[in-house]
Amino acid sequence: MKVAFQGVKGAYSEEAARKHFKDGCEPSGYAYSEQVFETVASGVSEYGILPVENSIAGAVAVNLDLLLKEDVFVVAECYLPIRHCLLAHKGVSLEEVKQVFSHPVALAQCRDFLTRRLIKAVPEYDTAGSAKLIAERHIPGEAAIASKGCAEAYGLNVLEENIQTVKDNITRFFIFVRGSKAPKGQTMQKTSLVFGARHKPGSLLDCLKRFADHGINLTRLESRPVPENPFEYVFFVDLVGGLEDKGVQAAIAELAEDAHRVKVLGSYPVAPR
Amino acid sequence: MKVAFQGVKGAYSEEAARKHFKDGCEPSGYAYSEQVFETVASGVSEYGILPVENSIAGAVAVNLDLLLKEDVFVVAECYLPIRHCLLAHKGVSLEEVKQVFSHPVALAQCRDFLTRRLIKAVPEYDTAGSAKLIAERHIPGEAAIASKGCAEAYGLNVLEENIQTVKDNITRFFIFVRGSKAPKGQTMQKTSLVFGARHKPGSLLDCLKRFADHGINLTRLESRPVPENPFEYVFFVDLVGGLEDKGVQAAIAELAEDAHRVKVLGSYPVAPR
Repeated sequence: MKVAFQGVKGAYSEEAARKHFKDGCEPSGYAYSEQVFETVASGVSEYGILPVENSIAGAVAVNLDLLLKEDVFVVAECYLPIRHCLLAHKGVSLEEVKQVFSHPVALAQCRDFLTRRLIKAVPEYDTAGSAKLIAERHIPGEAAIASKGCAEAYGLNVLEENIQTVKDNITRFFIFVRGSKAPKGQTMQKTSLVFGARHKPGSLLDCLKRFADHGINLTRLESRPVPENPFEYVFFVDLVGGLEDKGVQAAIAELAEDAHRVKVLGSYPVAPR
Repeated sequence: MKVAFQGVKGAYSEEAARKHFKDGCEPSGYAYSEQVFETVASGVSEYGILPVENSIAGAVAVNLDLLLKEDVFVVAECYLPIRHCLLAHKGVSLEEVKQVFSHPVALAQCRDFLTRRLIKAVPEYDTAGSAKLIAERHIPGEAAIASKGCAEAYGLNVLEENIQTVKDNITRFFIFVRGSKAPKGQTMQKTSLVFGARHKPGSLLDCLKRFADHGINLTRLESRPVPENPFEYVFFVDLVGGLEDKGVQAAIAELAEDAHRVKVLGSYPVAPR
């Protein structure tokens, strides 16, 4: 079973795929999130997995924007604890590390650790990509911030584990298939959708009331800009209830009267944290 | 009049400061947003200016999170059109450019341009910082994506102007002073505040109803995570109405009954786009 993720070997997304599919999958890494959607759309990969939210950094905006555009159906969510590690070549001590490469979000989450040790932070595209870079460059004084799995993947040493400032750091992923409908037999306990509120006073409130009217609890509300119309927004909503629930169906139908577009992203089981 | 911004000479934030203060200011750049707040808090700088939102990329999360924590009052908003330029040393032609440095958001916004020309994108902390880097390194085939002002600031040449995919690209800035109160004589037409909704069904809706009850229009609603409590959120709201308006005051007082914390970030005149 092929699962596409964004990043290289050892990425947190790959770890999330293995956690969700219990090793019964073959994860393939792609450079861009767009390519993850393409490979799912073409049928080359059965599933795509992408991070949508981190408990400290917030929404992964690029992936939300793509979910709005692309023709996929979210069939699962997955939570992965993020434990950033400092990785370097074997034989390099913590005192020798002068600069560290990683994704800007990971660097920011570990800033206290780096500042205390006067280590320079250098931005890179991925955490796992930084580990790969360090492994290939072999320059003294250089290290990467990435997952423990990356140490193994690239033959590096873990100098220090769990170095982020806020220890309880969790990323939430969406797992999706191609098409806009739920596959047969899909378990549906939570539903994710997007809507665009009209440009008039109180219209967001009108939209949200549609859910409250049916006793539906929202667990998440995230706004994203509409690039073509500066300072207009769409709202990403997660709600408790499956797409087959009568109340959810009624709320979505009514929402379509207030909102100027509604797109259901998927409906899936509640994942354990 | 000293105005602190994040970044180096030529940054879009510096341009925004000059636009807002009509050249009647002395902008100073700092490496981190945290330092902008520090210099305002200590009185070294009278004003701080930071981007809070871009019409394509969305919220500038790090700055929203700091506004929630720090003791400042927002006295103005400012909109700046963003026109990314490709900058290189004089004599370098577009065909010779092999890799380009910039902030990941700027790189993403110009991805179509870069992909078409097979130019490699390399992430850096700032747009202006990338222009500075290119100017100092002087390596053939390297360019930066930054503002036109950076060309002048660092003696570089503009190879191509306005290279982003979506041409109408606007960043919104907040300008703030120290303390939690409005300065005397402050013009107040819009108000920004943050609240934390309680963890029960419909509580966000209850909070938003407080504004609707007083006929107050929200122009923005942005959620941000509470790092200490994974998957709990605070909401950043911009509303039409000054802090001295009776309706706004009443709504905020009532909101305090539903929300588990409320913080007014500031109240300011409506800026032209």
